[in-house]
Amino acid sequence: MSKFLSEKYSSLVPYVPGEQPKDMEYIKLNTNESPFPPPENTGKEVMEEVSRLQLYPDPECTALNVKLAGVLNVSPDEILATNGSDEILNFAFMAFCDKDTPAVFPDITYGFYKVFAGINNVPYTEIPLDRDFKINPDDYKGINKTVFIANPNAPTGIILKCSEIEEIIKSNPDNIVVVDEAYIDFGGESCVPLIHKYDNLLVTQTFSKSRSMAGARLGFGVAAKPLIRDLNAIKYSTNPYNINRLTVAAALATLSNDKYNKDNCRIITENRAYLSEELKKIGFTLTDSRANFVFAAHPEISGRELYLKLKEKGILIRHFDTERISCYNRITVGTKAQLDALIAAVKEILKIKD
Amino acid sequence: MSKFLSEKYSSLVPYVPGEQPKDMEYIKLNTNESPFPPPENTGKEVMEEVSRLQLYPDPECTALNVKLAGVLNVSPDEILATNGSDEILNFAFMAFCDKDTPAVFPDITYGFYKVFAGINNVPYTEIPLDRDFKINPDDYKGINKTVFIANPNAPTGIILKCSEIEEIIKSNPDNIVVVDEAYIDFGGESCVPLIHKYDNLLVTQTFSKSRSMAGARLGFGVAAKPLIRDLNAIKYSTNPYNINRLTVAAALATLSNDKYNKDNCRIITENRAYLSEELKKIGFTLTDSRANFVFAAHPEISGRELYLKLKEKGILIRHFDTERISCYNRITVGTKAQLDALIAAVKEILKIKD
Repeated sequence: MSKFLSEKYSSLVPYVPGEQPKDMEYIKLNTNESPFPPPENTGKEVMEEVSRLQLYPDPECTALNVKLAGVLNVSPDEILATNGSDEILNFAFMAFCDKDTPAVFPDITYGFYKVFAGINNVPYTEIPLDRDFKINPDDYKGINKTVFIANPNAPTGIILKCSEIEEIIKSNPDNIVVVDEAYIDFGGESCVPLIHKYDNLLVTQTFSKSRSMAGARLGFGVAAKPLIRDLNAIKYSTNPYNINRLTVAAALATLSNDKYNKDNCRIITENRAYLSEELKKIGFTLTDSRANFVFAAHPEISGRELYLKLKEKGILIRHFDTERISCYNRITVGTKAQLDALIAAVKEILKIKD
Repeated sequence: MSKFLSEKYSSLVPYVPGEQPKDMEYIKLNTNESPFPPPENTGKEVMEEVSRLQLYPDPECTALNVKLAGVLNVSPDEILATNGSDEILNFAFMAFCDKDTPAVFPDITYGFYKVFAGINNVPYTEIPLDRDFKINPDDYKGINKTVFIANPNAPTGIILKCSEIEEIIKSNPDNIVVVDEAYIDFGGESCVPLIHKYDNLLVTQTFSKSRSMAGARLGFGVAAKPLIRDLNAIKYSTNPYNINRLTVAAALATLSNDKYNKDNCRIITENRAYLSEELKKIGFTLTDSRANFVFAAHPEISGRELYLKLKEKGILIRHFDTERISCYNRITVGTKAQLDALIAAVKEILKIKD
């Protein structure tokens, strides 16, 4: 840090994203990307937009919001598109938290919540997951703080029912509840319909996972109009043209082929079941993941050691050096071929014969 | 604003971008876009990247930084790429300003500085331009605040010499000086080489104007490494994957064809001279603009009226309802054909016969 950096950031601990190595071709099962490229027509649609690249994008993202609203069954002005869902989450910390309105989230969850709280100078409480890594909804009822719940949670993959989340929302009428649904499309039930019932609910989603667009950076928030207006005030005070034309073109193309994405999600959930079974067979303990990753531990090897040995073999998975979960690893559900390579490598490491 | 919005934003006044109308085809001379599309090979390069769109982009932007570093004659770790230059400017307000380190900028300049100060709760001082709309460098010497200077300034287009800016930098060794060079490529001398001489200089530039990529959202900051590290700490605490793959592909393509962009800049500066001459001939007063716009007033019509009458005729220019400049309009320098249409329309409005 230079001597010029504002003192308010003197204890800032930035987020550390999953490895994106450039040195060799890994089987990448560490950042929950889709193993499938976007639908075929995406390239053509994006290329056409290049001829208009000298012009600013529409800051209101009208075409995108209209199309997305149709898919989500909400109104276009109940949506705010952002540069990845990290941007909408940061906007939520900016808009709905402050010294008098602290944040609350589980002790084991998306590691960025803590960082957003830090950069926005927001006090926060972490509520421990229970022994089975589950969120206990009762812990959040009437809590009088801005609630952040990843559903399914990461890196555990465990999901709460909408009815359980609704209880949290209902019991905190004076506080916002943010439901981060980055992984909702792999078998979960979305809370989006609840935005028409509660004025204190913000649901965030992303095109990065189920829509094969991690490289295009597109996330969004869905909420009642007054909340979207608040979040727009933040957007127009930081970066009005936050979404570029190429990303919009890709999103419109992929939304026109959402059956392709849905089919891919079905394959991922089938592959998740396959991977879970194979890992259980060789002694792994797994949470009940409803996301595009599994969360697995083995009694005979530490999480860190397994991660390192797999990396040596050209397979990347994600290890978190966090106390309660240090024996676990998060493994992205890839293609069947990728998973077979992973399983074979794990067996080699554990010296398990077929 | 909803009842949930943090009180710290109760007096927030978001930025209002130039009109981006969707209702008809305007001759758009209101947001300083390039009239030229990006170089021909851009589409192909972008399309190829679509096949990798399911993968996150490189958060370090290595390929882009290396290429850009070559063009700018700096080191890759003296660059931070951002989602438009608004993002790097906001990062600068976050990192280098606070209650104890207020900001200072001219009273007439890029209207967003005030908004960035507002959202970051940074006190600021506006120093009046002189009677000829010039920045007086003496006003900023030893001022003990974080200085923001757009060079050329907007909407006046007037430029300071690098040696004049260097005096400001040198006299404020304990404060950052941000030089916003969004319009530097239309005939100005960049302060980028000074980053090797001063540890308190941040230069920001954009691909939106001279590189025909307003729709792709790419800006960047150039500074000594410790400042780039500070700004990276902000980036990794808000949005590590701030630049998407498609924008990077477009940027690499356009940087490989920078002669095309330079030729376009030359055409724009020639067209600027032509437009200025034609407007002077019919009674306009103009500042000495070194940007891709002119700033012009006519004694017989208010800025607002001219703007409205041109809009009726399908030509958009930018009017600012600000006291000192209300008789002026900012007109983007387009193609010769666009400018001839503009001049003809202005003559009609002013009832001037050829």
